[in-house]
Amino acid sequence: MPDRPHADLVALRARRGDRLATLLRELDLDHVLLSGADHIRYATDYRTQLVSEAFDWYAAIVDADGEAEVFVPYVEDELPRPDEGLPHVRAVHPLPSWAPAACHPRQWLTAVGGVLARRGARRVGYEGLDVVLRDGLAERGLLLRPVGRELFQMREIKDEIEVELLAATCRANEAALRRAVETAGAGMSDHDLLAVAAHDQHAAGVEFLTHGVCNVRKSSGGWFADGARLREGEPFFLDIGCYGRGGYASDLCRTGFVGDVPDAVRHAYACLLEAHLAGQDSARPGVRASAVHEAINACLHGHRLPHTPYATGHGVGLRICELPTIYRRDRMDEDAVIRAGQVLAIEPETTVEVNGLPLVLKVEDNFLVEPSGLRPLSATAPALS
Amino acid sequence: MPDRPHADLVALRARRGDRLATLLRELDLDHVLLSGADHIRYATDYRTQLVSEAFDWYAAIVDADGEAEVFVPYVEDELPRPDEGLPHVRAVHPLPSWAPAACHPRQWLTAVGGVLARRGARRVGYEGLDVVLRDGLAERGLLLRPVGRELFQMREIKDEIEVELLAATCRANEAALRRAVETAGAGMSDHDLLAVAAHDQHAAGVEFLTHGVCNVRKSSGGWFADGARLREGEPFFLDIGCYGRGGYASDLCRTGFVGDVPDAVRHAYACLLEAHLAGQDSARPGVRASAVHEAINACLHGHRLPHTPYATGHGVGLRICELPTIYRRDRMDEDAVIRAGQVLAIEPETTVEVNGLPLVLKVEDNFLVEPSGLRPLSATAPALS
Repeated sequence: MPDRPHADLVALRARRGDRLATLLRELDLDHVLLSGADHIRYATDYRTQLVSEAFDWYAAIVDADGEAEVFVPYVEDELPRPDEGLPHVRAVHPLPSWAPAACHPRQWLTAVGGVLARRGARRVGYEGLDVVLRDGLAERGLLLRPVGRELFQMREIKDEIEVELLAATCRANEAALRRAVETAGAGMSDHDLLAVAAHDQHAAGVEFLTHGVCNVRKSSGGWFADGARLREGEPFFLDIGCYGRGGYASDLCRTGFVGDVPDAVRHAYACLLEAHLAGQDSARPGVRASAVHEAINACLHGHRLPHTPYATGHGVGLRICELPTIYRRDRMDEDAVIRAGQVLAIEPETTVEVNGLPLVLKVEDNFLVEPSGLRPLSATAPALS
Repeated sequence: MPDRPHADLVALRARRGDRLATLLRELDLDHVLLSGADHIRYATDYRTQLVSEAFDWYAAIVDADGEAEVFVPYVEDELPRPDEGLPHVRAVHPLPSWAPAACHPRQWLTAVGGVLARRGARRVGYEGLDVVLRDGLAERGLLLRPVGRELFQMREIKDEIEVELLAATCRANEAALRRAVETAGAGMSDHDLLAVAAHDQHAAGVEFLTHGVCNVRKSSGGWFADGARLREGEPFFLDIGCYGRGGYASDLCRTGFVGDVPDAVRHAYACLLEAHLAGQDSARPGVRASAVHEAINACLHGHRLPHTPYATGHGVGLRICELPTIYRRDRMDEDAVIRAGQVLAIEPETTVEVNGLPLVLKVEDNFLVEPSGLRPLSATAPALS
């Protein structure tokens, strides 16, 4: 990365371990069984290979002392102490290889169940497990409790080292996004812009690209690149994400403009930025998440513009999308309270019609919640000059 | 894509629908509840936005007539008949937005459970569901049966239109990979090569990048790009994947060489290609998957080289990694039979030590199984001239 943070990953590991130990104690569990690469990273600092399909390729069993056994598809036999820098990772174990977990449930059950039995596990929290494996483990007499939501709640308030890592990823992601938007010109395609953005994300040294969306003349929700060419006088948007050092994420979006755009577009974009600011201003500690959502959409309504038809915000951490969710109260299990230490993406969208063609405008930035309000982690969406 | 196939996606939709209807009949189910974007695409042709974390953002309920209701995080209210080209998709429904499913289980249960009840569903197959949602649906009296494995088995034999789409993605992926490898020179970093590859994948118009791995002097399994610079006389490998038109995947790997490499590396690479060919030769209809794996590793052993420490092959379709798995018999639930119509990735790896430094070599290509043997879907790994 251009500005690699001097973060103390060993200190961070100890702090995350303390949090997990506290959670296990509170829930009266002796182990957790994790399958998300992000949860495994949080709990053990063990980095697994990332592939967009790998959500069910891994597992880790972790106890309250932080002692861990990890399961991956790319070792053939048990490997004790795989990393001298991670002495708490006791072993890496083999799993079925390059296949969805549901395709080899007996292998999974034997591998994971065997280690749980050897460790004398009795009360085990779990997340993201294939249902067949969960049922198989339950039949072996383990007391199993889903803890996915509790794990994300535990991760909601970021440590200062996590904030430093998130900010570094955000700066790299913003630079890639800015250059792609600046590159845009009439005749280029949506694919061309995604190519520039992905190139620069990798060149900046990020760990993994989560997504790249380029919307040229598509309506909300149908924003698939299909070779559409940029045209003079039209807006487009580009939404990209990645994981940087330590696995920490950034999720950003910019609206770009090809040449001079009609006044209606300029006006709608200025209103979108105003709504973005209204969301930022409202997101102070103690406020409900739904109030931030309402502030953004009320601003758009005040300008007689369509409101954002999905959550206008979400937490960012070891995933691009985690808690809190910032949405309508009736579309969330919990209307969370904004708290200092959360890192939030705020992402309003609106639509403006030009010559009968609906054009979607969207911006997204990432912020740390401080006692006095939001602090952006990188340069934010610029005004149209 | 440079060579867009003239595939008849409407015909493909009908054929896939017939297969799903047959499966439902065989399993005596009235509906399936799907959550994987690939399963939803297969069953409905409805394309969801892809993000590496989106494995639990979507759902679709499909009956034996192919009538479908889809759930996505980016509509705010129920949208009837969202796509006139997909008349069988009766509605799109809202879900919690930009959040893991485990964070909002009650919302999920209300949304999905409500539609299942309205449709009078009684016997429902499901895959990939968050456990809390599954348990909640079961409490409502539904008979629920996991069908993840059956769905992948159903998808194992590819239709000729699917093969055409897979081949088109493979050609685009191979071109991106080839240019990245040809670009490599001393002083460039692993990140630089990933940047070139990702750029060209997007520029070729693929739908989504699944992964990019560049291994410069890392041992097997620790293949993370970290800014390592290519050095004269050394090999490296680059493994990239993507989904192309219709969502069909390609997963390829090439070993590249910077300048003249030592004879030991040249020899080991020649042996790796020989092992790759041994695998290809053995993969004929009627043979067991484990026999293909053994043919590859026996060839490497015959040359006194380390064998591949993971599955040497896997199916490719709407995921880069699906059935069959080609691995040790004792690491698979089922030692599948190679059959005409499967599309396989074959990916041997070996390691050669030069001056005490272990260097990993790896190639991967995608093939259609024909009655007489394998047909490559694109240009395969070239010999070192």
